[in-house]
Amino acid sequence: DLLQDIVAAFQPRLLAGRTVLVTAGPTFEAIDPVRGLTNRSSGKMGYAVARAAREAGAEVVLVSGPTALPAPHGVQRIDVVSAQEMFDAVMARVGAAQIFIATAAVADWRPVHVHAQKQKKQEGEGAPAIALQPNPDILATVAALPQPPFCVGFAAESENLAENAAAKRLRKNVPLLVGNLGPDTFGRDDNRLELFDAAGHHPLGSGDKLVLARKLVAEIAARLDRSGG
Amino acid sequence: DLLQDIVAAFQPRLLAGRTVLVTAGPTFEAIDPVRGLTNRSSGKMGYAVARAAREAGAEVVLVSGPTALPAPHGVQRIDVVSAQEMFDAVMARVGAAQIFIATAAVADWRPVHVHAQKQKKQEGEGAPAIALQPNPDILATVAALPQPPFCVGFAAESENLAENAAAKRLRKNVPLLVGNLGPDTFGRDDNRLELFDAAGHHPLGSGDKLVLARKLVAEIAARLDRSGG
Repeated sequence: DLLQDIVAAFQPRLLAGRTVLVTAGPTFEAIDPVRGLTNRSSGKMGYAVARAAREAGAEVVLVSGPTALPAPHGVQRIDVVSAQEMFDAVMARVGAAQIFIATAAVADWRPVHVHAQKQKKQEGEGAPAIALQPNPDILATVAALPQPPFCVGFAAESENLAENAAAKRLRKNVPLLVGNLGPDTFGRDDNRLELFDAAGHHPLGSGDKLVLARKLVAEIAARLDRSGG
Repeated sequence: DLLQDIVAAFQPRLLAGRTVLVTAGPTFEAIDPVRGLTNRSSGKMGYAVARAAREAGAEVVLVSGPTALPAPHGVQRIDVVSAQEMFDAVMARVGAAQIFIATAAVADWRPVHVHAQKQKKQEGEGAPAIALQPNPDILATVAALPQPPFCVGFAAESENLAENAAAKRLRKNVPLLVGNLGPDTFGRDDNRLELFDAAGHHPLGSGDKLVLARKLVAEIAARLDRSGG
């Protein structure tokens, strides 16, 4: 609405001159032309982050899995379906980015077999099983580049948030990880976030995803300025 | 838009006094609180059918899997997630309906195990497999009721449309089945449909889903009138 547009226009230009690469949404891992594995991510948090980064003056590239959300104004969106496509789109563009924010809920696994035709129920056959293989780890791969951008991960955890998020930050080797309580927040417009870094963790707050995204952008900008990046 | 609203207001009231139960959208079969099996149905065809039936004067109940679509004006929408939930919602309401139109892309199978917590990647463990069990067949169950409503099925086929759709109509034991070329049409606003009944099959046409939905409503109304239903 109008008030939000006015607020947006007055956001500090904390990321002017930076290029930010954001992933958002779920991935869809095809089983056949119709069916697949996915998750309940709406993409709203990632789209809010992309919008907040754009408001802060950055060039923003948003690599998005399947969602029904419109691209934020001024943001370049690249649509992908699978984790492998998201990996490829990110690796092709990460060299130009100073900041990489991985909000997407990327499937850890994909089916080993993708059938060219829709698989049908067969009378008298037993129920099938879907064999899985691991997907590439986008965030860890970017963080392991010789000259990585400033990498920010997201962790949606259904239990032991602090312990699992801190462990995920070390495993992915990223300076900043944002924890949220996934199943409570999927598809909602508000959120409760916690920041994890080398110094420990502290709450970023709760509320509207765009408000939280602006706070996150300010945290990232402050860290980049401190590191002289 | 305005023109479409005017066109809608002038649709013939072919289903006045009837109650129509419509299913639409995909189902989502949970693996854990975050992940699940689903399909690429957008729900657009089913929502267009619900709207067209409402325009034709029917009371319309729309049982919908997860979509981002708004409910058509004047339609009662019941939101469900899984095939089992859709089955339960349909069986609770089908007694009041004279027409049942099953457009939903219902998952044939669901995972045997639903984990209460998000399943994590474990270092060193092999890739898992997802064991599946069959879901209830909503359309066939409704069609097998002692006094079934007039049942209309949909078939999204990626090959051999005519053969597979005709076989599906007999297997489900429904008087009318609508065939479309699924992978070409998922998520699109236009469609190409073919009707299958006891007399054979003939094209319903191609184009905008709402225009096709109105033609389908007219076909259903004519069959009900012929049968004195």
